[in-house]
Amino acid sequence: MIDAADLTARLIRCPSVTPTEGGALVLLGDLLTDAGFEVHRVDRNGTPNLFARWGAKGAARTFGFNGHTDVVPPGDLGSWTHPPFSGHVEDGVIWGRGATDMKSGVAAFVAAAIDFVHQAPPDGAVILTVTGDEEGTSRDGTIALLDWMRDNGERMDVCIVGEPSNPEIMGEMMKIGRRGSATFTITARGVQGHAAYPHKARNPLHALTAYLNDLIAAPLDQGTDHFDPTGLQITSIDCGNPASNVIPETARAVVNIRFTDLHTGASVQADLTARADRVAQATGVALSIDTHISGEAFLTQPGPFVDLVRSVVTQETNRQPVLSTTGGTSDARFIKDHCPVVEFGLVGAYMHQVDERVPVAQVHQLKTIYQRILEKYFE
Amino acid sequence: MIDAADLTARLIRCPSVTPTEGGALVLLGDLLTDAGFEVHRVDRNGTPNLFARWGAKGAARTFGFNGHTDVVPPGDLGSWTHPPFSGHVEDGVIWGRGATDMKSGVAAFVAAAIDFVHQAPPDGAVILTVTGDEEGTSRDGTIALLDWMRDNGERMDVCIVGEPSNPEIMGEMMKIGRRGSATFTITARGVQGHAAYPHKARNPLHALTAYLNDLIAAPLDQGTDHFDPTGLQITSIDCGNPASNVIPETARAVVNIRFTDLHTGASVQADLTARADRVAQATGVALSIDTHISGEAFLTQPGPFVDLVRSVVTQETNRQPVLSTTGGTSDARFIKDHCPVVEFGLVGAYMHQVDERVPVAQVHQLKTIYQRILEKYFE
Repeated sequence: MIDAADLTARLIRCPSVTPTEGGALVLLGDLLTDAGFEVHRVDRNGTPNLFARWGAKGAARTFGFNGHTDVVPPGDLGSWTHPPFSGHVEDGVIWGRGATDMKSGVAAFVAAAIDFVHQAPPDGAVILTVTGDEEGTSRDGTIALLDWMRDNGERMDVCIVGEPSNPEIMGEMMKIGRRGSATFTITARGVQGHAAYPHKARNPLHALTAYLNDLIAAPLDQGTDHFDPTGLQITSIDCGNPASNVIPETARAVVNIRFTDLHTGASVQADLTARADRVAQATGVALSIDTHISGEAFLTQPGPFVDLVRSVVTQETNRQPVLSTTGGTSDARFIKDHCPVVEFGLVGAYMHQVDERVPVAQVHQLKTIYQRILEKYFE
Repeated sequence: MIDAADLTARLIRCPSVTPTEGGALVLLGDLLTDAGFEVHRVDRNGTPNLFARWGAKGAARTFGFNGHTDVVPPGDLGSWTHPPFSGHVEDGVIWGRGATDMKSGVAAFVAAAIDFVHQAPPDGAVILTVTGDEEGTSRDGTIALLDWMRDNGERMDVCIVGEPSNPEIMGEMMKIGRRGSATFTITARGVQGHAAYPHKARNPLHALTAYLNDLIAAPLDQGTDHFDPTGLQITSIDCGNPASNVIPETARAVVNIRFTDLHTGASVQADLTARADRVAQATGVALSIDTHISGEAFLTQPGPFVDLVRSVVTQETNRQPVLSTTGGTSDARFIKDHCPVVEFGLVGAYMHQVDERVPVAQVHQLKTIYQRILEKYFE
């Protein structure tokens, strides 16, 4: 029996702030090797990643888990009640950076997988993929693991990402997809001039204000069965004109859009470009758009796998989890191209905060849920 | 006879970029002293200013002129066809910084005043006020001259400011007032948060966009007989948020408003504050406004003095000048508190530009106009 709470505390003591490995993947690799897993380090461009499989490559049924051991920086050390990499345990609570996001989730599925294959060896394979870069650029993290698996004939039939998925109470939410996310930088180029002679100038800030106001006033959709409406946030507007009697030549806005599966990054870009063209025609100010698509919207359609996870969560928590697509991105956005993927993990309340912490009992509960899911999957 | 074009060239050769005197006021002081004027340097806090009077202090009728010898920087010297402080004359054109704004105007009224008092000594006084800081902060320029005059029992009954007043052709426009000017810095303070969870944040940029869009869409007035509508220009919006997945806490916009005599700086401020309160109530984002009033709106009501200037301009140019209140501020905004003031000068096309230049004939024409105005005033 592996103690998932104890493993969580040991992982917290590895100072694995992205992109530092910090000993976390070495610890997991040794543990899994000892437990009979085939383990590979799949580092790429300095980013550490770990692949582990119990059972035969190419088995008829293969269940996967995904998670990360890297954490965001602790911030002001003096603000922490217990040092962020102490893994201090007191009164049934484990303290430290990564306690919820997501060393506990990794510890829970590692413990669940080891105990499961030892107690009831399945007719199939269990694959664990753990990256050291989910909080950073993610360019050489889970993507590198998936690339390596493809190149080496490895596959997962289904996958659970162990990110915190519950806003406040265990069992209230699981995630079956995610809105897409794209960032648009809109640059307005007008004609500079004196503020007292606006007819000789073209104010890029007026065009930009009209454009942004239109975006806010006329949203892209009203949401779908599984998705909240497409959301838009202006995250910055910048001009840097120090002279209050001068109409500037250029200004720039950054807009982040979280879009439903009614759209793709490309279709959102097309919509924004068409609106920009209309404003440009009306104002004579050129609006150019630079697009960065972080992830497309995706949905793991409700079906046998989603039902399996949901039924176990309901049984173990006495709550029927909402099938949600809310929140920020996760590495599920990469895995969805390979197999059905859902996210279920701990309560995310303390993520990225000072005094991040998790109840010991919650980690044990999550480990039990993961183990029951494995049992039910391989029944 | 003083040659106003030659005096213009000599003044251009004084490199009097604000706040440097550059020899310009010394040159004028000597010339006016030699011509029988009582001359005082009225420097304050390092800003050079010149006061000159012909005739008795406290004369029954006193005609005033106002202008400045300081100039804006020349910019890239390599872009000039002739060096900016060369006062080069070729093919009937005088080249150099200040050729139109406004060493030519000063030269024209100095020459007109000297020739007038020598040729037809009036029963009254002629006062010339010339500052070395109109292009800078103006804090110790014409204001210092007016303060000194008040303290020394000097006064002007009427005043012409010799700033370029014609957009393209001599005689097409004179200015009888000016819109007020005020700059408002609006700071929006919301609640920071993750772009994927906007319900937990309050985006200051959305509130600011709504606010600015309302200002643009609902102008303060439609103008009056002598004033164009109150104009509003957003001159900067700044946030400086580098993270496209973060809703920022604060953002700032700067708005410059040129207002008619239907408003005061205080009434515009009150209007903007009321609109800000409405947006704050609707969005939960606090909007605070910092106000800087550069000048109140003013109008020299059409009457005998305006008619006199207008009739001379019409006679000398065969054009009836429009009575305008357009354009940027000038030192007339200070003089209007002391006496009726109008602005008439050269064509302003090359103001503040590289290769600033003026036709010799235009300077002579302006000198003649000023001299005719003096003759008619003292008839």
